[in-house]
Amino acid sequence: MTNREAGPSRQPPAPELVDAGFAFEVAEAPLLHRPLGLADLAHVLALREAGIVPADPARRLLGVLLDAYEQPAEEFPYDPQVGEIYNCREQHFVERLGDDAGWLHAGRPRREAVRVALRLLLRRQVAELLADVAAFVHAVSDQATRHAETLLPDQTYLQHAQPSTFGHYILHFAYPALRSGERLAGLLGWINESPGGAGCVHGSRLDISRERLAEMLGFDGVIAHTRDAMWQTDGFVDLVSTATTLVENLSRLAEDLEIWDSQEFDFVALAGPYTRASVLMPQKRNPYSLGVVRGSAGLLIGRLTGLLAVGKTPSARSDALIFLYGETPRALDVATRATRLMRGVIATLGVNTERMAAALLDGFSQATDLAEYVMQECRIDYRTAYHVVGDTVRRASRDGLRGVDITAGMLDDAAKERLGHGLGLSDDGLAEVLDPEAIVRSRTVDGGAAPETVRGMADRCARAADRIAEEARQAAGSYNRAENALVDAAERVSRG
Amino acid sequence: MTNREAGPSRQPPAPELVDAGFAFEVAEAPLLHRPLGLADLAHVLALREAGIVPADPARRLLGVLLDAYEQPAEEFPYDPQVGEIYNCREQHFVERLGDDAGWLHAGRPRREAVRVALRLLLRRQVAELLADVAAFVHAVSDQATRHAETLLPDQTYLQHAQPSTFGHYILHFAYPALRSGERLAGLLGWINESPGGAGCVHGSRLDISRERLAEMLGFDGVIAHTRDAMWQTDGFVDLVSTATTLVENLSRLAEDLEIWDSQEFDFVALAGPYTRASVLMPQKRNPYSLGVVRGSAGLLIGRLTGLLAVGKTPSARSDALIFLYGETPRALDVATRATRLMRGVIATLGVNTERMAAALLDGFSQATDLAEYVMQECRIDYRTAYHVVGDTVRRASRDGLRGVDITAGMLDDAAKERLGHGLGLSDDGLAEVLDPEAIVRSRTVDGGAAPETVRGMADRCARAADRIAEEARQAAGSYNRAENALVDAAERVSRG
Amino acid sequence: MTNREAGPSRQPPAPELVDAGFAFEVAEAPLLHRPLGLADLAHVLALREAGIVPADPARRLLGVLLDAYEQPAEEFPYDPQVGEIYNCREQHFVERLGDDAGWLHAGRPRREAVRVALRLLLRRQVAELLADVAAFVHAVSDQATRHAETLLPDQTYLQHAQPSTFGHYILHFAYPALRSGERLAGLLGWINESPGGAGCVHGSRLDISRERLAEMLGFDGVIAHTRDAMWQTDGFVDLVSTATTLVENLSRLAEDLEIWDSQEFDFVALAGPYTRASVLMPQKRNPYSLGVVRGSAGLLIGRLTGLLAVGKTPSARSDALIFLYGETPRALDVATRATRLMRGVIATLGVNTERMAAALLDGFSQATDLAEYVMQECRIDYRTAYHVVGDTVRRASRDGLRGVDITAGMLDDAAKERLGHGLGLSDDGLAEVLDPEAIVRSRTVDGGAAPETVRGMADRCARAADRIAEEARQAAGSYNRAENALVDAAERVSRG
Amino acid sequence: MTNREAGPSRQPPAPELVDAGFAFEVAEAPLLHRPLGLADLAHVLALREAGIVPADPARRLLGVLLDAYEQPAEEFPYDPQVGEIYNCREQHFVERLGDDAGWLHAGRPRREAVRVALRLLLRRQVAELLADVAAFVHAVSDQATRHAETLLPDQTYLQHAQPSTFGHYILHFAYPALRSGERLAGLLGWINESPGGAGCVHGSRLDISRERLAEMLGFDGVIAHTRDAMWQTDGFVDLVSTATTLVENLSRLAEDLEIWDSQEFDFVALAGPYTRASVLMPQKRNPYSLGVVRGSAGLLIGRLTGLLAVGKTPSARSDALIFLYGETPRALDVATRATRLMRGVIATLGVNTERMAAALLDGFSQATDLAEYVMQECRIDYRTAYHVVGDTVRRASRDGLRGVDITAGMLDDAAKERLGHGLGLSDDGLAEVLDPEAIVRSRTVDGGAAPETVRGMADRCARAADRIAEEARQAAGSYNRAENALVDAAERVSRG
Repeated sequence: MTNREAGPSRQPPAPELVDAGFAFEVAEAPLLHRPLGLADLAHVLALREAGIVPADPARRLLGVLLDAYEQPAEEFPYDPQVGEIYNCREQHFVERLGDDAGWLHAGRPRREAVRVALRLLLRRQVAELLADVAAFVHAVSDQATRHAETLLPDQTYLQHAQPSTFGHYILHFAYPALRSGERLAGLLGWINESPGGAGCVHGSRLDISRERLAEMLGFDGVIAHTRDAMWQTDGFVDLVSTATTLVENLSRLAEDLEIWDSQEFDFVALAGPYTRASVLMPQKRNPYSLGVVRGSAGLLIGRLTGLLAVGKTPSARSDALIFLYGETPRALDVATRATRLMRGVIATLGVNTERMAAALLDGFSQATDLAEYVMQECRIDYRTAYHVVGDTVRRASRDGLRGVDITAGMLDDAAKERLGHGLGLSDDGLAEVLDPEAIVRSRTVDGGAAPETVRGMADRCARAADRIAEEARQAAGSYNRAENALVDAAERVSRG
Repeated sequence: MTNREAGPSRQPPAPELVDAGFAFEVAEAPLLHRPLGLADLAHVLALREAGIVPADPARRLLGVLLDAYEQPAEEFPYDPQVGEIYNCREQHFVERLGDDAGWLHAGRPRREAVRVALRLLLRRQVAELLADVAAFVHAVSDQATRHAETLLPDQTYLQHAQPSTFGHYILHFAYPALRSGERLAGLLGWINESPGGAGCVHGSRLDISRERLAEMLGFDGVIAHTRDAMWQTDGFVDLVSTATTLVENLSRLAEDLEIWDSQEFDFVALAGPYTRASVLMPQKRNPYSLGVVRGSAGLLIGRLTGLLAVGKTPSARSDALIFLYGETPRALDVATRATRLMRGVIATLGVNTERMAAALLDGFSQATDLAEYVMQECRIDYRTAYHVVGDTVRRASRDGLRGVDITAGMLDDAAKERLGHGLGLSDDGLAEVLDPEAIVRSRTVDGGAAPETVRGMADRCARAADRIAEEARQAAGSYNRAENALVDAAERVSRG
Repeated sequence: MTNREAGPSRQPPAPELVDAGFAFEVAEAPLLHRPLGLADLAHVLALREAGIVPADPARRLLGVLLDAYEQPAEEFPYDPQVGEIYNCREQHFVERLGDDAGWLHAGRPRREAVRVALRLLLRRQVAELLADVAAFVHAVSDQATRHAETLLPDQTYLQHAQPSTFGHYILHFAYPALRSGERLAGLLGWINESPGGAGCVHGSRLDISRERLAEMLGFDGVIAHTRDAMWQTDGFVDLVSTATTLVENLSRLAEDLEIWDSQEFDFVALAGPYTRASVLMPQKRNPYSLGVVRGSAGLLIGRLTGLLAVGKTPSARSDALIFLYGETPRALDVATRATRLMRGVIATLGVNTERMAAALLDGFSQATDLAEYVMQECRIDYRTAYHVVGDTVRRASRDGLRGVDITAGMLDDAAKERLGHGLGLSDDGLAEVLDPEAIVRSRTVDGGAAPETVRGMADRCARAADRIAEEARQAAGSYNRAENALVDAAERVSRG
Repeated sequence: MTNREAGPSRQPPAPELVDAGFAFEVAEAPLLHRPLGLADLAHVLALREAGIVPADPARRLLGVLLDAYEQPAEEFPYDPQVGEIYNCREQHFVERLGDDAGWLHAGRPRREAVRVALRLLLRRQVAELLADVAAFVHAVSDQATRHAETLLPDQTYLQHAQPSTFGHYILHFAYPALRSGERLAGLLGWINESPGGAGCVHGSRLDISRERLAEMLGFDGVIAHTRDAMWQTDGFVDLVSTATTLVENLSRLAEDLEIWDSQEFDFVALAGPYTRASVLMPQKRNPYSLGVVRGSAGLLIGRLTGLLAVGKTPSARSDALIFLYGETPRALDVATRATRLMRGVIATLGVNTERMAAALLDGFSQATDLAEYVMQECRIDYRTAYHVVGDTVRRASRDGLRGVDITAGMLDDAAKERLGHGLGLSDDGLAEVLDPEAIVRSRTVDGGAAPETVRGMADRCARAADRIAEEARQAAGSYNRAENALVDAAERVSRG
């Protein structure tokens, strides 16, 4: 038995606590104001339906809540001196309504209200982000179709690898985006479950229907276990992790384009509206958009880490959740802006097809095809063919020749040194093997660079994006309907 | 046109490169040895089927590959002086077989072999981890059923919140585990797609069937786009992110138990085999297991971050993948060990039911029920009821009384000050409200703490775990069958 | 030769770029407004002194800059539609002054202005944070002195380890704080070097004196290499890393106190102003401050990671810096608030000396002293003594006895089983060995728990804190003087 | 009063604990074996000097410890079934010596031994890393001197910015490396303090001299507070944070070089020994070293994050330290290898001076000098001059002209449109302004690109590197002397 003093302190909060705690939480008010309004409306309606709040105070309380809901967050008296967001609302309602405002808190801790509100916020954000992901995939897919025959020296380690096309290249960014989109769409199911009606953490003696609450708020169902409903963080981490991989994919594309937009590469040029001038250097046209996307990826890596580090606590400690109230929606916002920006960059990108083709012709990226040809024509193992071609290429490069300049004679010279005899190939046969366009046409394997293959994939990507966009549209529509119906119901009751 | 020298350098690698690069990669050989063996076997069989490799060298090459496959990784001559893993294998095969070994490299870059191998490794790891997740959920669910009526003062901020049960408490850890399990199971579909047959990154002029390769390796299908097949990293991040949230959930439980295993709480006691003695202090029995689990969570947060930071590069740069070859499987291994350990801790945990009940009775966690009772009996708003009860509790605590000691008279005293009149409640009525067992029985809401509710949930969790375990078993079985069939096929061909 | 179009785009920025880029940067305007004002004033004065700007426009330009400097950031027309912060300033100055405003940009890129401003901001923040660190150490040191004789069962793994004091315990948090303070003080030297006068990145054809610029801005010197001056990020990472370890130390203390503030431990109680009430549960007095501090540590881990991930780019890419303009000062702000909050928590902390002493007496934390006594008295090796005492303790605990209840007879019983003979010790001798106060008095080793030792250390910590505070005061004073002198000089010139 | 069972469990550890805990710790044995040997020797010598261990057992124990010290870690029976590293050693000593081995544990917990050993390990690693940092700075400084006049179009956003030199460019990487080196050197002071003699965490009743222990182990002094000595983690984080910023700087350089080593840029070429061949593509010569360095930076970001996340625990929890035993030295090892590799890359780098100069001439990077010239010659404000030059450049680029092709007439045309009149400049005057070499020579400001300025800086960097190398050499020498003396002393005593 202890004689610690129980119950709320009667002293005002310390100024340091106001600064470090309440002010920190109140900064999320613009994000949570409207969803909290919806959570409050549903809670009071549920209390009313269950007969817990008498009719008159319920009516008056709903009236005040509706006023608050309509009020812009900036005008609502959120003030850290009063406490965090919920305290500010509480005090405002008491000021307007007196004791009747006290019914709001029946059977519900502050945390339940905010958990509910957070999910109402996030489901909209995710639906919006999905639409942007779909739009990005469309922009990529359009460019891929347009450039299905635009030759490009594909690179690994930024070294010429093999002749490919810009269409095949650009399209490969659609796939991670689609996967991120599908994961986000899958997470909508997780988000859109109701933590409502959980009592403290294990139910309440009051007879509030969790199903009814969920229904009024447009949730698909109820989170099964009440303590889990209040304290889980894994889905939030998933959400931010998926947003981070989404933007990391964009960042890779951005970094590629930044390199290709250099004077030396000159493969692409960003449209003017996506660049920024220098204040000092009159000749500059900086690809500022790409830096923003790349920086956003780094920022999100940190946000995800922070969420996980904050979440490394014992169970049922508020810090894990308090800190994710703002971090999670803001991370999604960063992802949305970056995705939207990258869509614009791609949709308007200038592609320098001559320069790409010329760069390809300057190099030796046909060497693999040549070695494979040697292997097949001369029935020698690949490793040997590789060495013969490697020697040929090394010598040609020293002599200032290019891949297309390689002759049967040059191969013979190299083969004699390696094998003791020539290969007996003809220059005519080589011409086809060394022709980049022919090489690209040969890539008809599933997922390969042949123009028809790329166009087919681009089309399938576009249709997958359509499905994601449609899913997002339907989700957003159902949220709208539910929220409008909730406000309508509250208005009906409040008007008596 | 450039006159850079093209083709492989003829000089040996610098010793610093051997140390920083090849040695780093070779450290993964024990993980990748067998899966690489399978990848090689399938590739050569596919080359043979397509008529690319002649029959005789194919037979001999398969023989050597089968020998290597059977050889333990520790005995295979992996040596950073030779290069990374693939180079070591290449050199070894050449030593044994001469030029015939050169056919192995037809139409396939090193990276394809390792990408394939990595997925063969990861699918097994995930299947194994899923079994451990299921076992953990079973242990939790068993304890929840056993302790569905064991009173516990549930806590938030580690302060007594409301009377609950240990069963309800412990069960809530099953849900995040199940969600992680379901995500991991979902990722099996992503893992088990074949990157094989991608050529360099955009297909090959050789006619290797990607579908056939996938089939031989037991993959469910083919990754649609070849450049994506080679360079994607998002799924690996997902995998490690999910493993991290899985272990962070365990870490929370571990931290709770470490607190509860203190002399002061004395709510639980770890079984001896999960503790560690001090070398200095003879009285110590340290809950070492819990520290290991908690530390594993922190470690994984870093591993995930590292994966993302490594992946922040342009596209088609090998570092992103080279560094995840080891980091990803090792992260999964850490998660598996931590999950297995926590299962054991929970299955053998001693629960001090008397002490939990006594601690509950010492406090005031019935206060919310009391306020709700006052609200309902006296038809006053919750905020007012809360203040009356708050004042009562504060005073009682100063007087060294407990929640169960609160009387109607004490409430009246507080009410008079707040409201100007008493409440008129009876001590008999209060007795039920203040009785922890009655409170717990009242939590019949979905997901609440009432014993029957908890038992029902525990049962559903156990069945969900069974489904995950079954899925893992089937997946592992199908991998086994495919891999055995592949080795059999290779043996048949190699024996001619 | 290329025919890419050079020079600024004539099209307005895309709306997505405004949202994702300019709006992101403009969000830092409240932080950078005044330091940018100082940077601009110094630059124009330096241009004037070098005769680069003619007298009249210089006078007018300084007048406008001084107006802007006096204007609160909130009232200045920062607007993402116009561009980032610097563009907004530029446009505003042109609107007020016409072409004369154009002299501002002579010889200086936007980035130089912001790099200078950032350091002006950070040096003040660090000086402020140092004062808070010193205040925290004082609070700790005062409590250590006050509780130098307050018995505490010191714990490892949260298990009773040895008898110690609360004073010794609490004091150990002063040391990491002092180390962080010293590192931060050391970083002041790094911060307070001038990047000014670097031209684009490698100097300018204009004859602007870097030394003069540095002097006017109160910098201690000039960063040696101009490209390094513009692009370095290592010091910013150091700063945030040090802030993170500072707060992680506070977080550890916070977590300890949260556990000790539980009803079950009841070792400490937070003062009312550092707690928060529950909205639902009338008995609650939640140690909210501690959650805020712990969450701040997690947040900072993420911020540090983000800074490093953003910084993983090629050199001379603006994103690395653009993203740290806001992240670095905000991270320092979080650290400052957390430090200030924890100082308040410690200064007002209630310490339950009776409860600590009682908990100590309930356990077996004298066991090590007992084993050492046995070792020395009986001349047997420590491992053997440890086992004899271990057996004794195990048996005593089963019998419900405590450490102080151990008798010579009990030791003899255990010794007989282990050694075949008793130890022949006397109960009188044991009494001293088992007495916690005597044990504590014996810890006179450097850094040990003996009261006088602790008081001496506490005193030295307080004096070290004084030195840090004094250093901060002097630094802040010199910044004030320099900045006031700069504004004065600008006013003199502007008045002609 | 509790009746929990106190004292070590009599059951063997659970297999899951062996796997997840002991095996994890035993993996560090190769790192800690020798330093633990030294820690043990010093402890026994100190016990002997204080008369705590009798002469005979001390002699025998030292003999066994010396044998172990000489034995390679791989041959010592470290086995997770027995426990972690310390347990394995304990058991081995008991097997060899019986009860006499039990004296080893007098007055010292396992953690003290490992804390001491870790610092012995780290001080050597840091001294070694310092030597590598110095060597890297030398390589950079040599290249800077060699290429002080090699023209380079310096870039921001990878767009031509201004004419500079490769020498000025490369030298700027020396500065962050030197700063990291100085921080690491500063941390040597922190590392080389002794945690020895701390007892459990607050001293011991035994009279072991902390100063004597420190002296024998070659520490500079004693950590002031015993609990801090045992549980601090901030310095380890500092160490890894500094190593991470060190490698992030190298990674930036690596990424620049990877871009410049492309066929399109062709500014540099890695020496053959730092490249890697493709197994598939015969023309490839991949800059593998650069990917290794860049990946190492990402890896270290994760390691640092992990250390901080692991460290987010309450105080005095072993996990924070157990997990950093391996992570810290391994992170330093990664940093050392990356630094060494990058030194080699730089020292052997091929620089294509013709190509750099040609690229410069192809662009407009003289535009800023031109605008400044216009400003000064025509007494018009910079913004106006900038616009005139901007228009000129835009038009020239459309016409396929270059910066050097700009004429006074072209400027007049642009000026007439902007200003209504021409500028009246002469082509002769422009020639000097547009000449890259003249521009570079004008950068004589401190830290600028003028050749003499760069050579002077390079020289100062080299001397700063010498100082760091010398400091490292002296530190390593003093560690060697102390450790040899300790082993000698132990041998003397052991021989009796």
